[in-house]
Amino acid sequence: MTTADKVRPLLDRLGALHSGLFQKDFLLTWEQTDDELKSVITIAEILEHFWKGNISARVFNGGLAVSNFRDNSTRTRFSFASAASLLGLNTQDIDEAKSQVAHGETVRETANMISFLTEAYGIRDDLFLGEGHKYMSDVSTALQQGYEEGVLPQRPAVINLQCDLDHPTQSCSDLMHLQAMYGSLEALRGKKLAMTWAYSPSYGKPLSVPQGICTLMTRFGMDVVLAHPEGYDLVPETIEISKKHAAASGGTFTVANSMEEAFIDADIVYPKSWAPWTVMQERTSLLRSGQGNKVQELEKKALENNLKYRNWECTEALMSQTKGGKAHYMHCLPADISEVSCKEGEVAASVFDRYRAETYQEASHKLYVIAAMIMATRFENPKATLEGLLAKATPRKLA
Amino acid sequence: MTTADKVRPLLDRLGALHSGLFQKDFLLTWEQTDDELKSVITIAEILEHFWKGNISARVFNGGLAVSNFRDNSTRTRFSFASAASLLGLNTQDIDEAKSQVAHGETVRETANMISFLTEAYGIRDDLFLGEGHKYMSDVSTALQQGYEEGVLPQRPAVINLQCDLDHPTQSCSDLMHLQAMYGSLEALRGKKLAMTWAYSPSYGKPLSVPQGICTLMTRFGMDVVLAHPEGYDLVPETIEISKKHAAASGGTFTVANSMEEAFIDADIVYPKSWAPWTVMQERTSLLRSGQGNKVQELEKKALENNLKYRNWECTEALMSQTKGGKAHYMHCLPADISEVSCKEGEVAASVFDRYRAETYQEASHKLYVIAAMIMATRFENPKATLEGLLAKATPRKLA
Amino acid sequence: MTTADKVRPLLDRLGALHSGLFQKDFLLTWEQTDDELKSVITIAEILEHFWKGNISARVFNGGLAVSNFRDNSTRTRFSFASAASLLGLNTQDIDEAKSQVAHGETVRETANMISFLTEAYGIRDDLFLGEGHKYMSDVSTALQQGYEEGVLPQRPAVINLQCDLDHPTQSCSDLMHLQAMYGSLEALRGKKLAMTWAYSPSYGKPLSVPQGICTLMTRFGMDVVLAHPEGYDLVPETIEISKKHAAASGGTFTVANSMEEAFIDADIVYPKSWAPWTVMQERTSLLRSGQGNKVQELEKKALENNLKYRNWECTEALMSQTKGGKAHYMHCLPADISEVSCKEGEVAASVFDRYRAETYQEASHKLYVIAAMIMATRFENPKATLEGLLAKATPRKLA
Repeated sequence: MTTADKVRPLLDRLGALHSGLFQKDFLLTWEQTDDELKSVITIAEILEHFWKGNISARVFNGGLAVSNFRDNSTRTRFSFASAASLLGLNTQDIDEAKSQVAHGETVRETANMISFLTEAYGIRDDLFLGEGHKYMSDVSTALQQGYEEGVLPQRPAVINLQCDLDHPTQSCSDLMHLQAMYGSLEALRGKKLAMTWAYSPSYGKPLSVPQGICTLMTRFGMDVVLAHPEGYDLVPETIEISKKHAAASGGTFTVANSMEEAFIDADIVYPKSWAPWTVMQERTSLLRSGQGNKVQELEKKALENNLKYRNWECTEALMSQTKGGKAHYMHCLPADISEVSCKEGEVAASVFDRYRAETYQEASHKLYVIAAMIMATRFENPKATLEGLLAKATPRKLA
Repeated sequence: MTTADKVRPLLDRLGALHSGLFQKDFLLTWEQTDDELKSVITIAEILEHFWKGNISARVFNGGLAVSNFRDNSTRTRFSFASAASLLGLNTQDIDEAKSQVAHGETVRETANMISFLTEAYGIRDDLFLGEGHKYMSDVSTALQQGYEEGVLPQRPAVINLQCDLDHPTQSCSDLMHLQAMYGSLEALRGKKLAMTWAYSPSYGKPLSVPQGICTLMTRFGMDVVLAHPEGYDLVPETIEISKKHAAASGGTFTVANSMEEAFIDADIVYPKSWAPWTVMQERTSLLRSGQGNKVQELEKKALENNLKYRNWECTEALMSQTKGGKAHYMHCLPADISEVSCKEGEVAASVFDRYRAETYQEASHKLYVIAAMIMATRFENPKATLEGLLAKATPRKLA
Repeated sequence: MTTADKVRPLLDRLGALHSGLFQKDFLLTWEQTDDELKSVITIAEILEHFWKGNISARVFNGGLAVSNFRDNSTRTRFSFASAASLLGLNTQDIDEAKSQVAHGETVRETANMISFLTEAYGIRDDLFLGEGHKYMSDVSTALQQGYEEGVLPQRPAVINLQCDLDHPTQSCSDLMHLQAMYGSLEALRGKKLAMTWAYSPSYGKPLSVPQGICTLMTRFGMDVVLAHPEGYDLVPETIEISKKHAAASGGTFTVANSMEEAFIDADIVYPKSWAPWTVMQERTSLLRSGQGNKVQELEKKALENNLKYRNWECTEALMSQTKGGKAHYMHCLPADISEVSCKEGEVAASVFDRYRAETYQEASHKLYVIAAMIMATRFENPKATLEGLLAKATPRKLA
């Protein structure tokens, strides 16, 4: 089967979807319509076929893709750089001091100053509840204004590479992964997904992955079960959205009291650590009062609290309680693997090892999702652009 | 009006100018002829039209644009990276320790070692009087020698991204901005420009912006007035050059004793902070005697001295004294805005806000100026090269 | 003589060589056949002609070249970035903490996570005996597995940018340099090369350069003489390999007791500092026991020990003892030049100065060697690919 054969039905599917993403940003999945999400995933699939079929996807001859990581990152940094390279943009990182509240005027000015040739501006800002999404929204407003004032010749798209509320490049990659495993988005209907907290000895991780999974997967008719110890709540807004999505799609969204309960008959499990709610709030207070240097101390306290829930581990015994003992295991990586990357962690070594290659595959989609978000926001008619690439079929790598 | 229609008269203008920049560097505007300066600005205008008209300006298929920031930078870093991306070069930053006097042999060797595929080498070195331009000249000598010895297959152009004497990418952007506002360089004749010191609570800033503005704008028949508190003199050489330029162009260069005096009937005001002369000299002494670590302490002292001149602020009252109360306000950004970015600063919030978009526009030209300097130094006949790009009209962004 | 005229005989030579490098890595020269080494050098020569003849060698339209420098680097960093730019790849650096033993699972996961679009992964890891090559081998295994599992759509090549055992991009550049000076590899037969230790006041340098030179040059019928003070032995394995190579090629490999002895009648001298054997071993012990912070202290001790051998300096008197007093002087740079870069160093200023341009030329080949290693490992038939580039002759820089 040629690349063209694989891509043509996807182009048809893309043609039937209505997207209002052109000249916009991609910040939160719940701000996008179903069609827009499907557009992004479909474009990502096409770009993945192009790469594997050695067809160049360079839609830009120069221009910048700017990244701003206000929290550490290796995987997402490389995904963003890969997406930029795929599309023909040059990556430029802006290395702001971490843990600083940026002020209005500075945000506006800096956003414009780095964007004269910028097509995409990817931001990670996930450590402080109430700050990350706000920062990205401020940048978006500044860029829109700069564009309207004629300062910027093009409207750069802000791409959320993880904020305090959502992690759309992760959740959309995960959705692509589920689609690949079950054959279609339609096939996800009625599948049970257990999104659960798990114990980790490492730093107080952001809430955006579980929030992103609950809000997104409930839109596709899945039965999403959330479980976590007391005090590890998610941002209430995202719980409400998940409930609303489930009601609308014919899926369900429930909260269980234990990993054990959540795992029973699950088709998919997603056990992953995150920081306690109070820690997340206190962290923001420290930041706002200029005591960012105390965050590390706070995280130490959080980790001590975590210790009470060391039994939240994805073990073989728990996996055996899932649907046919064969649930798919998902993780955004890196996982804290017991007796491998730490003494006690999120998942038993034998469980992780069985699903290792699958989690790598899961991660492989992210770069195409980012590239798709850039195409969806920067091109008026991505289908036509992709058809043009297919017709030309410039080799990505010479023979 | 098509891009071709806009560009053709500029190509004609470019064709009438004589430039000796090919195979040379761009270090100080006063080392260049009027024709050479006009060439750079004209090429910059053409490149700007190309970008806005979606015509690719990739004159290189690979090769490096190396940057070396010996002082902090965000804006210029992004301008340089943008210029490189525009022309098809890959950016590579060399991260030398700051505040170090580089020795002869090391300068020569490093310059050659990083330049085997290098077309442009952009350097910022502005903190130490007597050092920055010298360093760039040493690099230039080393590259010329490497080229003549056959070590380097091409002669990389050194681009001054701000030294102790001049800031040519800034001053040429500012000149482009003035040309755009008044319609032509000829129209600048007789316009009064007030280049004045202003109070800032932030670090002891380099002298190269006021020096660059005074030396450049006096060449185009403008009436340039410089004003600063006692002890904030500029490098004498640049004062002499400004006087000579004014005499030759039919403009004037005068020194006023206060912001008030300088602003009267001004067409353009450029109020901006810089460090006291003695501080700049002492900073270099510290560096040369290996006490670079004491620079911060010195700057603290300088800022205390600044406090005496807190009334040097660009206020609404002062602006009302300018020509018709409507002078253009210019700034290289970031400005210290009173009650916005600091308690007391260079400019009142209401003044800055009125001119904010204009200062952003002013900044937008810099990347094209840098790209134009690279084209002017690396291409024997930039007009023919640009005509080739126009004829081919490869889209920068696919449809 | 046109570029095509220069390149055609090289393409013929390349066509006659058998290489099994496709889909493999380049880690140690002694793991490669003579034909494979000759392939790399021939491709490098062709790429050098392409650059100088303004023929684009962009064989990739996007994709990443990832670099991982676990020891400092400027030269090799720029060589790697230049090679990537030459071939059309985007560079992305992974900035891991230095001085850390990376664990198995982390190595495997990270290697895969950064490689979804990666064609080449360049690694420098040279400070710890027994660690560098092992680390690169682990990465190689991880990438091979990721490719076989379908996680990676292409098999990235690991390129050794210096490990504890070998420095193949340096030694192959040096071989290219010798070939250029003597006209052919065949002409190296019977030439005497003195690879000797030399005094340096700077940090305890890796052993990989002398090991790389001894193991490689003995393959081409040269008479290689190694000399160093007591206690500055090389890794025994590399001594054995050098002996075996000399026996097979008809060259010789001997050990002399002094610089004086080694220099007598030498055609080429390569005087260069490295750390004492016991220091290299202790350094690894410290690292493995988690005391990486004590490495600096250890290096200080090593430098004190070095002081005993200050007379190991490449002086004019010593040079006069070489073949006709005119041996070629080689160095990987930067050299510690007495009374220039340090008080007492590896080489007298007048000697270095006479050969300075030659050492720069020697260094100029490295970027093409790296690019050639990427082409040899990533293309099934590099000859055909290069012929395609020559036929198309896309200008690297527009006219």
